[in-house]
Amino acid sequence: MAKPSTSAAPRLSKKDYEARAAVLREKLVQLQVRLKEAPFKILLIVAGVEGAGTGDLLNTLGSWLDPRGVETFSFRDPSDEERERPFLWRFWRSLPTNGRIGIYAGSWYTETLRAALHEPPAQQDLSPEFERIRHFEKLHADDGTLIIKVWLNLSKTAQGRRLRALSSDESTAWRVSPDHWQYHRHYARLSRLAISIHRATHRPHAPWTILDAEDDRARDLDTASLLIARFQAHLRKHGRPLKTKAPSAATRRSLRPAGLKRLQSLPLDQQLSAADYEAKREKWLGKLNQAVRTASAAKRSIVFAFEGWDAAGKGGAIRRLTSAIDVRDYRVIPVAKPTDEEKAHHYLWRFWRNIPRAGLTAIFDRSWYGRVLVERLEGFARDDEWKRAYAEINDFEQQLTARGIIVVKFWLHIGRDEQLRRFRAREETTYKRHKINDEDWRNRRKWDAYEVAVGDMLALTDTTTAPWHLIPANNKRHARLQILKTACKQIETALA
Amino acid sequence: MAKPSTSAAPRLSKKDYEARAAVLREKLVQLQVRLKEAPFKILLIVAGVEGAGTGDLLNTLGSWLDPRGVETFSFRDPSDEERERPFLWRFWRSLPTNGRIGIYAGSWYTETLRAALHEPPAQQDLSPEFERIRHFEKLHADDGTLIIKVWLNLSKTAQGRRLRALSSDESTAWRVSPDHWQYHRHYARLSRLAISIHRATHRPHAPWTILDAEDDRARDLDTASLLIARFQAHLRKHGRPLKTKAPSAATRRSLRPAGLKRLQSLPLDQQLSAADYEAKREKWLGKLNQAVRTASAAKRSIVFAFEGWDAAGKGGAIRRLTSAIDVRDYRVIPVAKPTDEEKAHHYLWRFWRNIPRAGLTAIFDRSWYGRVLVERLEGFARDDEWKRAYAEINDFEQQLTARGIIVVKFWLHIGRDEQLRRFRAREETTYKRHKINDEDWRNRRKWDAYEVAVGDMLALTDTTTAPWHLIPANNKRHARLQILKTACKQIETALA
Repeated sequence: MAKPSTSAAPRLSKKDYEARAAVLREKLVQLQVRLKEAPFKILLIVAGVEGAGTGDLLNTLGSWLDPRGVETFSFRDPSDEERERPFLWRFWRSLPTNGRIGIYAGSWYTETLRAALHEPPAQQDLSPEFERIRHFEKLHADDGTLIIKVWLNLSKTAQGRRLRALSSDESTAWRVSPDHWQYHRHYARLSRLAISIHRATHRPHAPWTILDAEDDRARDLDTASLLIARFQAHLRKHGRPLKTKAPSAATRRSLRPAGLKRLQSLPLDQQLSAADYEAKREKWLGKLNQAVRTASAAKRSIVFAFEGWDAAGKGGAIRRLTSAIDVRDYRVIPVAKPTDEEKAHHYLWRFWRNIPRAGLTAIFDRSWYGRVLVERLEGFARDDEWKRAYAEINDFEQQLTARGIIVVKFWLHIGRDEQLRRFRAREETTYKRHKINDEDWRNRRKWDAYEVAVGDMLALTDTTTAPWHLIPANNKRHARLQILKTACKQIETALA
Repeated sequence: MAKPSTSAAPRLSKKDYEARAAVLREKLVQLQVRLKEAPFKILLIVAGVEGAGTGDLLNTLGSWLDPRGVETFSFRDPSDEERERPFLWRFWRSLPTNGRIGIYAGSWYTETLRAALHEPPAQQDLSPEFERIRHFEKLHADDGTLIIKVWLNLSKTAQGRRLRALSSDESTAWRVSPDHWQYHRHYARLSRLAISIHRATHRPHAPWTILDAEDDRARDLDTASLLIARFQAHLRKHGRPLKTKAPSAATRRSLRPAGLKRLQSLPLDQQLSAADYEAKREKWLGKLNQAVRTASAAKRSIVFAFEGWDAAGKGGAIRRLTSAIDVRDYRVIPVAKPTDEEKAHHYLWRFWRNIPRAGLTAIFDRSWYGRVLVERLEGFARDDEWKRAYAEINDFEQQLTARGIIVVKFWLHIGRDEQLRRFRAREETTYKRHKINDEDWRNRRKWDAYEVAVGDMLALTDTTTAPWHLIPANNKRHARLQILKTACKQIETALA
């Protein structure tokens, strides 16, 4: 774009620019070809001083990159669907799949920056925001994502010169808005804020690169060079999926034996007669109905996670639960093997997507705990991955509860013999036969190892705000009633 | 569920119920296995008299079907993201992919039914709603979708009996809300409304089936039987994709030669000097910036569709356009070959998904017109499909403009020689070589056939609210400036 030159320093000549651009463009094309097959994505975050030319840079990158592999994001005020979920939800929903580039003209940094324009930073404690951002970036970097953060810098003098030059020419004056001048006036304060953001969120896996944007041509070339250099380094380290084929011996060793003890000491022989069950069930369904409606009226959402042994009765328990809830107020989300799209994302992505709107209920039939159960034991997650997952999951649930969402987690526990009885019964009933397959029998043979994993899960993710409820489920009626009671109490406590 | 019997008629015995259920469940399992591979989806819409047991029916179906192939939908009040788009947007975004079942406990009928509870139907003219619903269902039925609409009926006497029985038992009284009684009082009016809905939307491809819901067991069995019977009949007709391999001769014959004449008579030799362009460009960018901001402030969205010959300069023109728009206010959507997920949906699905929020701009680099261009000529769409598409597209755009969205469509036209020159230039530039491939050369050899298709498109989709703008593009500067001017005028006219 041949806009009036606003630079005092000598601008890169057009000829030099074009020669260097030609080289970089070819490399960018090669980058995209290789990225397409790579097991990771690139997030390129562009932020910076007002007037440094984010929009122009995006346009240049748009012409250099193959648009089919790129998505560009920017964010206006959040919609109500976004405001009703945790802060990071709108960013989770925007993430590209592996093999693609997401360019963020606005990002998880934008709101902090914008808010600071109107409020002196001294009055704000930004540490929770920074903490949240660090977690988010770490989570994705750990997953292999290449995070590139560019800060376009412009000195106060250069900014003023650019704004004046644009304003003085009638045909370009529209490029300068009152906001620009306000940013100019508060240059020093915003600079200090930028420095504190950089310090707080500059990490080896997600470093900031500060680029001088005074020369628009150099700015575009430098950004492209950075993208290429970071990609090449990343490819050497993360070019191949690291998945081990066979699960390591570590998957079978308990990290925290207390959980296993808790599991094994659960008495399983409770009984509940059909008559007793009939007598109590409707009462508790009614209480649950009331509790869910009260939560809904208060715009509080509920997230149920149902985990348990194969054939422990998760499906049946869920149907009893939902019979008390208005069909418009809940959704059941069955969690099976991830789809191709889900595999090209972080393992938590498909759960983030399904966080309910304010006042609604989501019931997960199996959940994010698959990461530390089946994925741990079948080698779908490496040791470092499933070991890291406990903290990631606690952080995920903490974001839900902090947003007012009520999280209720059940482990349905049955004995080994009871499972065998149910497996055989399933095999004998024509229309239930599809519910049982070789995998179920394989998992059953690994009972001891699963028990260890369940124990670790109970010990490491039993938090105050999202505790585990162990349900003895050898007797289905007893289990169902206890689930109803527990759900009621949890919701009522959360609302109290 | 053993709720108090509320039926006067003899209820199906538990034994008979279980025997019949066992047979149906096995068939449902088989259905899902076959559906998984079928090139269509099933939409099962359940509506009916209040108290007829939609929720219980859903729970039963949930226990009979494999949950991994089913999604259940219901709808509360629309969110702002939904309200900002055409009425049907929220239903488009909910559709399952081919091979799956979507069960709609709430649907495109719900709002009409709910509104009527509070307003006597005499005061409403429902014909536009009915028309919209008929179009929507026809569109998907034409695409192969199996649409099953069930109306659960209950006589006023049976409804009253059920409500009284539930209310009189302390443990079940919670199942009856004040709304239920209101529905009961207005039974006659709602019945008349139901009849008018059935009449207006009962079509061979989307018929209503009215089921008596007095006996809850029979209700569940009848619904499952209906699902199985309709599926088997549908499978015989639509079990295999009908796609022809080679495009028929009809694809090369013009439907409306006037369009072709219009295209061929476009003068292409306009010139614009670099100096003239430089002098005028910023002024028009400024005007466009103003127009887009005015539209945005008025919460009016803008949808640009860029079509044109390969190498006609769509990408460059789009980047000039976006250089005038705040990066937070627009998104460019490059349209390439559909992904697997997109292929498992109606061809308009991926465009519905990308309708912008109120006040934002979406720029489609290629668009839904692919259906009547490349898909027509390469045989990706059958003759009946692409011929039907003109009306479908007009209806789609009409829904956008009716919602206040400004639709601006460009066809960038270059000469055959000019295209050849640009192809060769691309091949000679290392970093542009990836922009040209065998397919481009193949398309070029079909120039005459494409011209016919473009002509038909111009003639058949040039509507008052979404007219086509033909842009002579042999001279890039001239084309870019004309696009800026046209965009401004279209937006200003729409806002006037």
